[in-house]
Amino acid sequence: MKFELTILGCGSATPTMRNWPTSQLLEHDSHLFMIDCGEGAQLQLRRFKIRFQKIRHIFISHNHGDHCLGLPGLISTMHLLGRTEKLSIYAQKGLKEAVEIQLAVSHSRLRFQIDWIELDPGATELIYENKKLSVHSFPLNHRVPCSGFRLSEKAKLRNIRKEVIEEYNLSVPRIRQIKEGKDHKLPDGTVIPNSELTLDPEPPLSYAFCSDTAYSETVVEAVSGVDLLYHESTFLIEDQARARETFHSTTSDAAKVAAKAKVGKLLLGHYSARYKNHESFREEAAAIFPNVEAVEEGMRFSVENVKK
Amino acid sequence: MKFELTILGCGSATPTMRNWPTSQLLEHDSHLFMIDCGEGAQLQLRRFKIRFQKIRHIFISHNHGDHCLGLPGLISTMHLLGRTEKLSIYAQKGLKEAVEIQLAVSHSRLRFQIDWIELDPGATELIYENKKLSVHSFPLNHRVPCSGFRLSEKAKLRNIRKEVIEEYNLSVPRIRQIKEGKDHKLPDGTVIPNSELTLDPEPPLSYAFCSDTAYSETVVEAVSGVDLLYHESTFLIEDQARARETFHSTTSDAAKVAAKAKVGKLLLGHYSARYKNHESFREEAAAIFPNVEAVEEGMRFSVENVKK
Repeated sequence: MKFELTILGCGSATPTMRNWPTSQLLEHDSHLFMIDCGEGAQLQLRRFKIRFQKIRHIFISHNHGDHCLGLPGLISTMHLLGRTEKLSIYAQKGLKEAVEIQLAVSHSRLRFQIDWIELDPGATELIYENKKLSVHSFPLNHRVPCSGFRLSEKAKLRNIRKEVIEEYNLSVPRIRQIKEGKDHKLPDGTVIPNSELTLDPEPPLSYAFCSDTAYSETVVEAVSGVDLLYHESTFLIEDQARARETFHSTTSDAAKVAAKAKVGKLLLGHYSARYKNHESFREEAAAIFPNVEAVEEGMRFSVENVKK
Repeated sequence: MKFELTILGCGSATPTMRNWPTSQLLEHDSHLFMIDCGEGAQLQLRRFKIRFQKIRHIFISHNHGDHCLGLPGLISTMHLLGRTEKLSIYAQKGLKEAVEIQLAVSHSRLRFQIDWIELDPGATELIYENKKLSVHSFPLNHRVPCSGFRLSEKAKLRNIRKEVIEEYNLSVPRIRQIKEGKDHKLPDGTVIPNSELTLDPEPPLSYAFCSDTAYSETVVEAVSGVDLLYHESTFLIEDQARARETFHSTTSDAAKVAAKAKVGKLLLGHYSARYKNHESFREEAAAIFPNVEAVEEGMRFSVENVKK
């Protein structure tokens, strides 16, 4: 089952020729989710050949422009290309009105419905789920209301051993029950315990996204044990004072969160425009948490179990 | 005196990897003017190394997203980089509210003033002038309120002949008067007529911009005699029916306007995403109006007198 992150943009507030503002695409089991939507995100979706009409859910962490200004353009393009399918947007208070007035003054009458779900930036909440995945928002510590997101796979079905299907001539509904953990009763009354019929499933995987935040113990708890963590590190350690002032993180803050939360792998981004390259980000964080990468646009990461 | 156009974007509503949405930069005598501001325009300003804090006036033709969605991001960046100088934005009704609510929900408190000037899409009006240039808006024929812009140099001062400055030992204020057309009176009462002191000035130059419009006689009149005309041609002649439906122009419409208005040179842009290259645009228009180019991002054009 595919569970893959694509980095569309990993710059911060003032754009550069090196990085686009924040935006990410998550693909899970053929569902596409977008996280944040900075200006130009629709161009990045095209650049990386993502079938963006398949996106049904967009999670926006907060209302700073570098995380949401791409929404009106993306929505317009979805409309112009004939979308009829509903889109759900999870965002902080106010963004709905801003986008709706922009669409209204441009005389756009969408042929598809948008469901706006207002986030509670002070709470950890289940905001979406399907059969295989649940998404929670959780509080970040930024200077405006801001939420992180955790996408967690649900417990997977047990793997049935192929030979038992033939041996006991199992029907499809019966196979399903056994995958769910049931034992199997033979016509003569003998019970075959589930442990003889199945193998343990793969552990459920999870990804967490922390867009803009100062170091926070709440965040450590919220991202506890995820396989892949994206945590902003706008600044290098030498600019820690600036990080504190602006409620952002340094490499060291991000790495400490990863270490304390015992995550599998850490990704760094949201680089301040002052840094010309990002190798130092990786180096500084690796001193605290070794399995770390400094991301760039177009990079793709499988969410996978690296903690075994 | 520099009078130069830079194409920042010349695509239309649905973005492509080939073209950016509409935006242009006009430099006249060290003043920078922006015309339209599609999504990502601030990135194009950076790409072409334009000192965008020097922009004091932005003219927005209409409220369709591909002409204005870059404004909130550009304004935010101007703010974050410390701008204190006033910015004037000339736009259709409604855009002010859309941009202001976007800035408000993102908790931006600008340290510089924005003057919003509402355009009258039904009238030809002087909307800006300085000592050397005047800017008029004029009606376009689109399916929403939409204005074109004409930037016209004012009559220039006459060129004083260098040798007469020394011959008559002219003071700076006197030189100014002679450049303005005055005769010169010698101490003995002899009058030297201005025609003996000066040469004719260069003719004043002008540029007109027609963003989104069907063919219109009003437009022909408004752009009459300009040295450089940008006129949208969203479609090739074979897609004329689609042009009519959407209140856009074909190559032939644009070339007819240029020919009837006796302009110096014609530029084509606002290409529909359906066309992979734009050579056919130039060819079709050239059959009607030979001095024509199909623009691309980054092209620069001097506004100059080619009609002599």
